Amino acid sequence: MASVQPLVRQLFSGDPRALARSISLVEEESTQGRAILKAIYPRTGRALVLGITGPPGAGKSSLVSRMVGGWRKRGEKVGIIAVDPSSAFSGGAILGDRIRMQEHCLDPGVFIRSMATRGHFGGVSRACRDVVDLLDAGGYRVIFIETVGVGQDEVEVVQIADLVLVVLPPGLGDDIQTIKAGILEIADLFVINKADREGADRLASELSAMLALSPDHGMAKSPILKTVATTGQGIPELMQAVDQGRRQKGRTASREEREKERSRERFLELFREGLYRRAREACLARDEVEAIAEDLATRRRDPYSAAEEVLGRVRFAEPRRRVPSNGRRR
Amino acid sequence: MASVQPLVRQLFSGDPRALARSISLVEEESTQGRAILKAIYPRTGRALVLGITGPPGAGKSSLVSRMVGGWRKRGEKVGIIAVDPSSAFSGGAILGDRIRMQEHCLDPGVFIRSMATRGHFGGVSRACRDVVDLLDAGGYRVIFIETVGVGQDEVEVVQIADLVLVVLPPGLGDDIQTIKAGILEIADLFVINKADREGADRLASELSAMLALSPDHGMAKSPILKTVATTGQGIPELMQAVDQGRRQKGRTASREEREKERSRERFLELFREGLYRRAREACLARDEVEAIAEDLATRRRDPYSAAEEVLGRVRFAEPRRRVPSNGRRR
Repeated sequence: MASVQPLVRQLFSGDPRALARSISLVEEESTQGRAILKAIYPRTGRALVLGITGPPGAGKSSLVSRMVGGWRKRGEKVGIIAVDPSSAFSGGAILGDRIRMQEHCLDPGVFIRSMATRGHFGGVSRACRDVVDLLDAGGYRVIFIETVGVGQDEVEVVQIADLVLVVLPPGLGDDIQTIKAGILEIADLFVINKADREGADRLASELSAMLALSPDHGMAKSPILKTVATTGQGIPELMQAVDQGRRQKGRTASREEREKERSRERFLELFREGLYRRAREACLARDEVEAIAEDLATRRRDPYSAAEEVLGRVRFAEPRRRVPSNGRRR
Repeated sequence: MASVQPLVRQLFSGDPRALARSISLVEEESTQGRAILKAIYPRTGRALVLGITGPPGAGKSSLVSRMVGGWRKRGEKVGIIAVDPSSAFSGGAILGDRIRMQEHCLDPGVFIRSMATRGHFGGVSRACRDVVDLLDAGGYRVIFIETVGVGQDEVEVVQIADLVLVVLPPGLGDDIQTIKAGILEIADLFVINKADREGADRLASELSAMLALSPDHGMAKSPILKTVATTGQGIPELMQAVDQGRRQKGRTASREEREKERSRERFLELFREGLYRRAREACLARDEVEAIAEDLATRRRDPYSAAEEVLGRVRFAEPRRRVPSNGRRR
């Protein structure tokens, strides 16, 4: 395997082509991609990661585009990851949304990448975290993770972020009831975009009533802002709120806790995935899987017994009694 | 462990309390639950499973309620699984939707069960398949899987179904662009509900134009129906279309292929899950996970190397050179 050191050096120096190449190597799940991720890891964790989610039609892309403009004026390099879980089948990003971002397409200080889930469990959030690390190592100080819709996948993806902005359009009507369930709990900031439309004030008051009723999520303190992304109205206030949210999060002890929590999840995800891949390669021949599928389809065997039988071929060693890294003995 | 045989017998006899009890045992992931699933498996695969998906506000529940009425008139027992992935955090089903179903609440021939994802990868579709099997074994000949929204999770869940109905409301506007990506490919039937509202005809023609442009998905042949669930308009035609779709699917050779494909996925999912659970128990002490998380958060180690290290403790046996169940030797 060719050394990844030259590529990693170029990436550290901020070369966007090295970044694009690295992302491709990582997405292909190549050994080189993995080596790159290992090499850059110590230099990650510096960027501000902003999650943007909300229902289709809320104007998320236009809002991101405006905020990107704000950070570019401050001289920060900005990365955008557009996550599109709904394109599991068509495999492409949604053109319309990307077009709204085109004002930044030619700016070398802005890096835009679309990602689809391709139907893998846990696939998006893992892949997304890897790309965040690569952008971070490439000197992008602000990284947006923008989702297309508001499903479970989106919830998982935006939880990678340091701050989560939930964007809502006025006129949701009764549907705010269906949207609130998963998404409201993870919001650090609410943005009512298209606030020049009818219903913005009503939505704002419904939302704050709803937040006031939610006891222990700390959401009650999540600010509600109004913007009109198309005209730029409310954007300076939004930038200010993000800065403030960032400072607050940085101060609290919970930031460390959150980082540890995310590290734990990430490790376990990699462990689970690696385990499955190795087990399939080592003890499940392809034609055996086919034979099992045939048996199940015709009800000759049941899936639970079949899984248990194959699991019987795996041996697990005891965990080593290692001294934890902080030096304390157990 | 107490024998599950009496419970399984009650379940086979159609006792709804035995069914509810079995579902609980399965959802608790108990050994008994697993024994029940093994025992009933040979008696499954007989029900018609209908997946219902579409954006919030499309009127899915009202439509299901109408169709349930139709099957009840034919004397069939009907099961409804309401899947609500968005409630990963709040953990409850959405009340409003359930209320629309109340006309069937007191009918002993209708069994309604809500399920939330609880944030597990692959969790809903697996749990949902188990409940489908239990309903099937309990003599429910028609089983609805109704989702709340249209995310990636919903796509996976409804793919369990034999026939997938995508329900759309008129007036989606530009948002049809964002909805189409994931969901249109899996539709066997499109239902434009609330068809008495403005925009129903336009949606129908946009939809058929879109389908005509999609080459190899076979969607071009998916019928588009119009209904008004609140008044019952178009429901007989919908029932007819479902019957027809069912007959067509039953005839084709692809039905067997599909059943085999689903069996394969199910087995691999169980295998993957079991693998992870056993590996965590056997070779990852809780405090080791904490120590690793700490190391990652502070960038002392990287998650890839940490995962590889722990994976090194697992040993996989070669697959046995078994004779495939159809008796052919390789």
